[in-house]
Amino acid sequence: MDKINLIQKFSLFNDYWQPKIVSELNDNYIKIVKLKGEFVWHQHVAEDELFLVIRGRLHILLRDGEIDLEPGELVIIPRGVEHCPVAEEEASVLLLEPKTTLNTGNIENDRTVARLEWI
Amino acid sequence: MDKINLIQKFSLFNDYWQPKIVSELNDNYIKIVKLKGEFVWHQHVAEDELFLVIRGRLHILLRDGEIDLEPGELVIIPRGVEHCPVAEEEASVLLLEPKTTLNTGNIENDRTVARLEWI
Repeated sequence: MDKINLIQKFSLFNDYWQPKIVSELNDNYIKIVKLKGEFVWHQHVAEDELFLVIRGRLHILLRDGEIDLEPGELVIIPRGVEHCPVAEEEASVLLLEPKTTLNTGNIENDRTVARLEWI
Repeated sequence: MDKINLIQKFSLFNDYWQPKIVSELNDNYIKIVKLKGEFVWHQHVAEDELFLVIRGRLHILLRDGEIDLEPGELVIIPRGVEHCPVAEEEASVLLLEPKTTLNTGNIENDRTVARLEWI
């Protein structure tokens, strides 16, 4: 039951779009990820997804709009809602998702991370 | 699907030990709470509980130790682990818990908040 310092955890890696698990609770994983550039449009059919920005800025494109997040801001993307995360500059983001969630949701391609690393 | 700015949400209330719901996902609530002083020893029999400190410092007393959290630090208290949160000065904390979680866990007393407010 160790505490987790998010900034320290983010200092341990530099790859983008590769979520790392930092903890788990009640069948969910707490993940952290560094983002830069544009991801792929996808949705999670059965899972709501939380994005909390720790550093940088994150844009989440939606089919009917856009959500812009700064540090200390979060959003829940409900299941079934297509979205595409974009970060013009590097952004550090905390994710909360059920353990079953795949990063690319309903899409499987070269951005898919099938086996998540603990950090 | 509005974004949530945590600092703005914390500015909306000043009471202590009264968690407010800011969002929900996958049968969990995201709650925020201001803490000051000492809470009650309790445990959650079937639910792990996440504490993420946004402002201030939080001490979580355990039967065999103590966890000290600063902003940007989080801990998961596993189900069944007795704990007692203490904040010497005001602390602003984000909680993630299943919707079924009662703030005082296995204890019901005057600190129990049976009906949570959305904010």
